[in-house]
Amino acid sequence: MIVPEEIIKLIETEDRFLIASHLNPEGDALGTTIALYLALKSLGKNVIAYNVDGVPYLYEFLPYSEVLKKDLDGINTEEYILMLVDCNEPERASVEKKRFKKALVIDHHLTQKEFGDIKWIEPQAPATGVLAYHLIKALGVEISKDIAINLYTALSIDTGTFRYDNTTSETLRLAAELIDCGADPAETAIKLYESWTYKRFQLLVRMLQTLEIIDVEGCKIALTYITLDMFRETETTQADTENFSNFARMIEDVDVSVMLRETEQRSWKISMRGKGRVNLARLASDLGGGGHRNAAGFRAEGLLEDIKNRLIDAVRRLLHQ
Amino acid sequence: MIVPEEIIKLIETEDRFLIASHLNPEGDALGTTIALYLALKSLGKNVIAYNVDGVPYLYEFLPYSEVLKKDLDGINTEEYILMLVDCNEPERASVEKKRFKKALVIDHHLTQKEFGDIKWIEPQAPATGVLAYHLIKALGVEISKDIAINLYTALSIDTGTFRYDNTTSETLRLAAELIDCGADPAETAIKLYESWTYKRFQLLVRMLQTLEIIDVEGCKIALTYITLDMFRETETTQADTENFSNFARMIEDVDVSVMLRETEQRSWKISMRGKGRVNLARLASDLGGGGHRNAAGFRAEGLLEDIKNRLIDAVRRLLHQ
Repeated sequence: MIVPEEIIKLIETEDRFLIASHLNPEGDALGTTIALYLALKSLGKNVIAYNVDGVPYLYEFLPYSEVLKKDLDGINTEEYILMLVDCNEPERASVEKKRFKKALVIDHHLTQKEFGDIKWIEPQAPATGVLAYHLIKALGVEISKDIAINLYTALSIDTGTFRYDNTTSETLRLAAELIDCGADPAETAIKLYESWTYKRFQLLVRMLQTLEIIDVEGCKIALTYITLDMFRETETTQADTENFSNFARMIEDVDVSVMLRETEQRSWKISMRGKGRVNLARLASDLGGGGHRNAAGFRAEGLLEDIKNRLIDAVRRLLHQ
Repeated sequence: MIVPEEIIKLIETEDRFLIASHLNPEGDALGTTIALYLALKSLGKNVIAYNVDGVPYLYEFLPYSEVLKKDLDGINTEEYILMLVDCNEPERASVEKKRFKKALVIDHHLTQKEFGDIKWIEPQAPATGVLAYHLIKALGVEISKDIAINLYTALSIDTGTFRYDNTTSETLRLAAELIDCGADPAETAIKLYESWTYKRFQLLVRMLQTLEIIDVEGCKIALTYITLDMFRETETTQADTENFSNFARMIEDVDVSVMLRETEQRSWKISMRGKGRVNLARLASDLGGGGHRNAAGFRAEGLLEDIKNRLIDAVRRLLHQ
């Protein structure tokens, strides 16, 4: 991976940088932001790390996560170079109303917006953290233990810790180097995947007990639900259901995994996850929602059985199109 | 890692090899067996790959898994060199009543028995597959795609796909090399983690419902179990419990995850998984079993409650040592 020369020059000649990443940040956005913050700081730069949503509880283990600011009050952004990371449009980072001295985009997403004085987008990279790594090396900054942990987390989250199909031998060699610089693979995995509250685990078990496989003309739907009572009994909230809709995908012949959550009496939020066979964006759209091909959702009012039937009818319609 | 010269000599001078691994084989035992089978075959040797329990359906995706024999009928084992892999006592592989020309042990387990004419045991290695890799290279055999997939699976299973604390930068570099030789990380992960039968999923849900957190002087044990009835009711077998012992590790303050499986009326097989705080190799040894620091097991007879109490007592003894 070649780091654009103009980025290195820009960093070498400028002094003030504001690193911003997308709303609802995850490990790649946060790890990249903090790693670049630390690298630029070590070069003596004035750096602000910004995310409008702050750092979720899950990521507070990241070294220097406390440097992220949730607002830009009193900062004259026009004196700063914006470094937009892990996204490429200012709206995604809630900085669209600010003016900057210059804007630099560092990202790995496929869909690109017309924004930025310098754009460095590598859709082949499994994580923006990979670009950050190469930039930091190109700047001649040593990968400290704190930088390594942040970049290892970025790489882990965006590759499912080396399980998704964006994982290459290069990914693993980079991860190996980050371990040599101080990242701890087991510690990172424990923080990311093995730090569930007991209550959350109980909610998962309760949800899994509701599993029903519905066969709609050969299309297999794994349906699970969580009622208000289940939230109450396990003392959990909507936030605890993050990623739950993925669980039933484990089953080999399931085409769509659907999770219904009761948000208020007879009000449901429905998340769907697919494996490619059914276009969930279209299915959700038919049901008044939206999303992507393999991850979409909608909201509905009524009894569980009614919503189930509405869903089955919609799947049937889609299969007959 | 240095491959003992005498092993290379033995392989070079002998012709007949019987590779055997432990009962209830998992990815490391099977991947190592098949990789060595293919390597020795490519050298023109007569090779038998043997496992008394055969290949569980979960591992049927391994290239050449069909070469494993479940019996040694009509084979004069005295003409063969035994290669005992991923275990180090003949009883574990059900070959204790056979006589062999010589016995070679290749393993990475901490607890060692007095067996074998040549023993090569590397407790620091995350998987026996790592030893197999170095042996195959030392023999001058090219790592084919089929060998790479088998070794990548061995490495994946024994490191939780690079999430356990036996994962080092060397582990990831070896994995990277196996990818370069043809192993597919995403494909392997789907086979290992997202190809569950519905019955297996139901068994998991049943098991998770038994979850109990036991606090032994501050050490938190997550205990789950599967009875013969639960196997019967879900139409599943022991082979379906692969990896189940890891689930309760997800809970943030759990130190040890313990899963008990009833193998026969009042006969139990107990698997334990840790997060570093408790030395499970020692705990298991105290209970008549063995294993690694963070993954060990033992067998026990009796009522569930009795075994639970024996375990609690053993944990208490260990904490007081």
